[in-house]
Amino acid sequence: MDRNKAIAFSAPSLPETPAQVVESELQAVETRLLSLLDCRESLISEICRYLVAGGGKRIRPTFIMLVYRACSGSDRNLADVVDAAVALELIHSATLLHDDIIDSGKLRRGKPSAFSRFGLGPTLVAGDFLFSRAFELCGRFEERLIKMAADACIELTEGEVMEGRLRHNASVSLADYKKVIELKTASLFRCGGRVAADLSGAPERIIKRMGRLGTAIGLAFQMVDDLLDVVGPESKIGKPVGSDLRAGIPSLPVVLGIAGCAELRRLFDERTGVDGAGFERALELVRAPEVLAASRQKAAEQAALAHNELSCLKPSIYRDCLAAMINDQVDREV
Amino acid sequence: MDRNKAIAFSAPSLPETPAQVVESELQAVETRLLSLLDCRESLISEICRYLVAGGGKRIRPTFIMLVYRACSGSDRNLADVVDAAVALELIHSATLLHDDIIDSGKLRRGKPSAFSRFGLGPTLVAGDFLFSRAFELCGRFEERLIKMAADACIELTEGEVMEGRLRHNASVSLADYKKVIELKTASLFRCGGRVAADLSGAPERIIKRMGRLGTAIGLAFQMVDDLLDVVGPESKIGKPVGSDLRAGIPSLPVVLGIAGCAELRRLFDERTGVDGAGFERALELVRAPEVLAASRQKAAEQAALAHNELSCLKPSIYRDCLAAMINDQVDREV
Repeated sequence: MDRNKAIAFSAPSLPETPAQVVESELQAVETRLLSLLDCRESLISEICRYLVAGGGKRIRPTFIMLVYRACSGSDRNLADVVDAAVALELIHSATLLHDDIIDSGKLRRGKPSAFSRFGLGPTLVAGDFLFSRAFELCGRFEERLIKMAADACIELTEGEVMEGRLRHNASVSLADYKKVIELKTASLFRCGGRVAADLSGAPERIIKRMGRLGTAIGLAFQMVDDLLDVVGPESKIGKPVGSDLRAGIPSLPVVLGIAGCAELRRLFDERTGVDGAGFERALELVRAPEVLAASRQKAAEQAALAHNELSCLKPSIYRDCLAAMINDQVDREV
Repeated sequence: MDRNKAIAFSAPSLPETPAQVVESELQAVETRLLSLLDCRESLISEICRYLVAGGGKRIRPTFIMLVYRACSGSDRNLADVVDAAVALELIHSATLLHDDIIDSGKLRRGKPSAFSRFGLGPTLVAGDFLFSRAFELCGRFEERLIKMAADACIELTEGEVMEGRLRHNASVSLADYKKVIELKTASLFRCGGRVAADLSGAPERIIKRMGRLGTAIGLAFQMVDDLLDVVGPESKIGKPVGSDLRAGIPSLPVVLGIAGCAELRRLFDERTGVDGAGFERALELVRAPEVLAASRQKAAEQAALAHNELSCLKPSIYRDCLAAMINDQVDREV
């Protein structure tokens, strides 16, 4: 089956981008988000603004708003879903600050990371501040929604540690990889899909499917990110090509490449191999056409799963936008 | 006025320690607390257990349970106040993990810190996990209680950054110092006092006073901790004498010593001064009898304020225990 054809079929061309269709909702998210970065300690605000106002694509809020509207969410509960989107973006931002500390990440979105600009202590505390703000914001929600958000936070920590276990570990399997990105990337999308559907008043059946939609979009998103890490160019990804590989992170091309290449297995398993002179060779191996093709195929499979979940929604511009969003994620790489 | 006499008068000798009087409540806290450290990633659980089960004195849970009972809190809502105490202890534990990273703290309670034993990344993530668990636990509470806990979390981050601003800063004032410890140490006690009174069904007037009680106990506790840092001995404080001073933290004896001693001001202001050969001299200066006496006086003033807040409570064994707890805090140092 021609996967690209199938995807193109399911998303009619739209006069506006998904973000434009929910522009006023996203504006409300933006205003609320930035207002919550205020803090009596100006350094905390400065770090948070540096990250949060520094070119994030707001994919999670866009997804949440589209799901809410696609589930016929009304204006009446809009303040709730705005706060939910803000809370999840705050949590996402907190993990970016902490991840850069853990990975000693020097660049983020093409500029110095908060960690390299403001140092370890202030960046760590700013991350805790963003978590605390999300926590504060969630106070208005019912217990089951708070539990969803807290579960996502717990999964983020589990994913981070699981990924750490698998670094420079050449026995990493595709199943391991998928579990890591389910925890580290897909959890906030799943949570967002479920919370948005719940707040729209949708029945449990739809809430579950919007959760699965979030998981599939999150997985596709991360898989394409992993591909971009090795194909670049640097100007597009905002950091040096092969950063994940160099850090020993078992990304999708690495995991797929390892399966059929003893040399890559050896390079990836030896810290000095990937860090030093072996890096260029390892990068060459993960950029083998068959590895890239297999990686694209995996991302396309997740995109197809995501499209499949849309079938439970009534036809609407919002559903079309969700379909376009799925395709946009996959298209980033080609 | 003889402060010690006044304090002794307000706390009759008790047949049991405060912790013994609320032993069954604290046992419930302990069971719940340890159960919440379970995690699918065993390294996270290991780090959390290493810290949480590693000799903490459970001062905050003891305080919360005593306030709850002193406000006539019944067994009916006990599960709620147990969860509140657990949530605040989880938050406190998370900040200990993160503080050790920020301060490169090698020792905690007389043994290697989690940071020095497990490394930066896993310790940072374990702290985030504990925050997330607290967040999850708070889902069952009403919005105003969640707001109290989230506000305390935000204050903890503000206190950390404010303290960072004042490190090695010889122009630090007593007011600055008090603000830092209000944010960094007293905030969880204040929150605990308010939440416990609220859950007991006490009126707003009492909730406010239990918050103030928490603030005063928290301040007294930190002031005595600061004194112990400079008087030791190491066997009692579980870390080298003068650790705060060496790290340039403006502790109570430093702030009071600086006011009357240009040499100490100079030593504290120059990083190399306190870090290197000047450390012994600086320690000698902050251990001057008049500085220690002034520090004790400040702690005793907070203890007196705390005793004063007890007057709104009906006489009970729990009120007596709170009085004993205040005195115990101050007596740790003498």
